[in-house]
Amino acid sequence: MRITIIGSGNVATHLAAAFKNAGHRIVQVYSRDMQNAALLAYHVGAEPIDNLNQVNPETDIFIISVKDDAIISTAKTLSKHQKLIVHTSGATDLSSLSAFTSNAGVFYPLQTLSKNKEVDFFTVPLCVEGANETITFELEQLAQTISNHVYRINSEQRKILHLAAVFACNFPNYLYSIAQQLLAKHNMEFELLRPLILETAQKVQDHLPAEVQTGPAIRNDKNTMAIHLQMLNGEPEMKNLYELLSQAIIKNI
Amino acid sequence: MRITIIGSGNVATHLAAAFKNAGHRIVQVYSRDMQNAALLAYHVGAEPIDNLNQVNPETDIFIISVKDDAIISTAKTLSKHQKLIVHTSGATDLSSLSAFTSNAGVFYPLQTLSKNKEVDFFTVPLCVEGANETITFELEQLAQTISNHVYRINSEQRKILHLAAVFACNFPNYLYSIAQQLLAKHNMEFELLRPLILETAQKVQDHLPAEVQTGPAIRNDKNTMAIHLQMLNGEPEMKNLYELLSQAIIKNI
Repeated sequence: MRITIIGSGNVATHLAAAFKNAGHRIVQVYSRDMQNAALLAYHVGAEPIDNLNQVNPETDIFIISVKDDAIISTAKTLSKHQKLIVHTSGATDLSSLSAFTSNAGVFYPLQTLSKNKEVDFFTVPLCVEGANETITFELEQLAQTISNHVYRINSEQRKILHLAAVFACNFPNYLYSIAQQLLAKHNMEFELLRPLILETAQKVQDHLPAEVQTGPAIRNDKNTMAIHLQMLNGEPEMKNLYELLSQAIIKNI
Repeated sequence: MRITIIGSGNVATHLAAAFKNAGHRIVQVYSRDMQNAALLAYHVGAEPIDNLNQVNPETDIFIISVKDDAIISTAKTLSKHQKLIVHTSGATDLSSLSAFTSNAGVFYPLQTLSKNKEVDFFTVPLCVEGANETITFELEQLAQTISNHVYRINSEQRKILHLAAVFACNFPNYLYSIAQQLLAKHNMEFELLRPLILETAQKVQDHLPAEVQTGPAIRNDKNTMAIHLQMLNGEPEMKNLYELLSQAIIKNI
C-alpha cells in the first residue's frame, strides 16, 4: 500500500519502519518540525513535509500519529483528499475521525515504544477498528503484514484497554522506581532487582496474575507487613501505597 | 561441599537442584512431611528425613529454608552439631541464628521461585552474609558455584531489599491482575497485554525506571486521567489506586 505517516514520534517511527520492512511504500512523512520529518522520512525512503498543505493526495491511507489533542484538527485538514484516515490513539474514539469522513478507522499498537529501542513489531498487538466492515477488513489485512497479533477492538473496548495498560505498564514502572529509590538510599544497586522484575513479568506470560501472586499480603503475613510499614515511617507516600496495595491484595484473596 | 537441606518448599527445591548440578553432594533433605522430603531427596540423590533428630552430622552446612517463624526453633535444634547453619530468608536477621551458634550465615536468593517453573539459577542474585569474614568468604565461594550474581548484603540491607522486592514484584503482579480483570469484564483476553507487560520489565533491564516512565500521569495529562477516573466509578478500590499512583507520579516529575 501507499502510506502517508502524519507525525514523527515513537509510534509514527516504529510504524513507518515496520511498514517499510513489510514492503509498503511510505509516500510522505509529516511533522511540524522539518528536522524530525526529514530524519524519519530518510529512514523509510519517503518525502518529508512540515505543512499539511503539501500533502500528496496520491496515497492509500493517512496514518495520524500525533498528540491526542491534535488528531481532530489534523483529520479535518486531511479529509478533503477523501482517502482512508486512521489514528493510532488508544484513548481516542473512532468518532473523532468519522465526524469528517466515513472513510475512517483506528490502528492502535498496544505497546510501549521508544524511538531508541528496537522492537520486533510482529510481537506487538495491533488493535484495528473501521467505520464499516470493508474498512475493518482492509485494516486487518494491512495490520497482518506487520504483526502476528491483530485484534478487532471497538472504541469502547479500546478505552478500557488503554486504562488497563496504565495499570499493566505505567504503574508497575513507577513501583520499580520506588524499589530503586529504596535501594539507592541504602547503597544498593538496582541491578539486584532486575532479574526479579523480569521473572515477575515472564511468569504472567503463561499464567494469569492471580495464579502467581506472592508476597506478605497474599499470605496475610501481618508480622512482615507491620515491619515493612514501620520501615516506611519516613516515607509517607510509599507507606500509603504499601498499605493500600496490601489491603487490596488481602481483600481479593 | 556436603550440604543438608532443611525444607522442601520453592527455595529449598531450587537451591538443592542448583547445588546438585554444580557437583555438590546433598546429604539429606528434611521436611515435616515425608512425602515432600522424599520427592525432593529423590531428585537430588539425598536421604529424606522427617525428624530433625535423624539429622546426619556428617555434613558441611545446614541450609534452613523453612517458613520464617520456624527458623529459630530449627536452628536451635541443629546448633548442637556445631556445623555452619544458614537461613535463606529475606526478612530475617542473621542474629536469629547467631543467638545459638557463631557458625552462622545467610544465603538469600532474590528471585520469585515456583517449584513447577524452571529457572536458570546462574541469573539469580544471591545475597550472602556471614557471622564473620571467614564465613562470608566461604558462603561467597559456595554461592559462586551456582550463580553469577553474588552480593555481600548485611542484615539491614537485606530487610530493605526484601521490602523493595514487594514493590518490584508482588505489587506489580497485583496491578497486572487489576488490568486482567478490567479486560475480562469487557470480553477481552489478557493475551492483549502480555507483550506490554514483558516489554515494560525489559525496558528497565538497561535503564532506570524513572528514565522510561510513560503514561498520562508523567505527562500530567489531566484530561485522560479524568476520563480514566470516571471509567473507574464502579470500582472504588481501583479508582483509589489509580488516584494515589498518579498523584505520586505527578509529584515526582
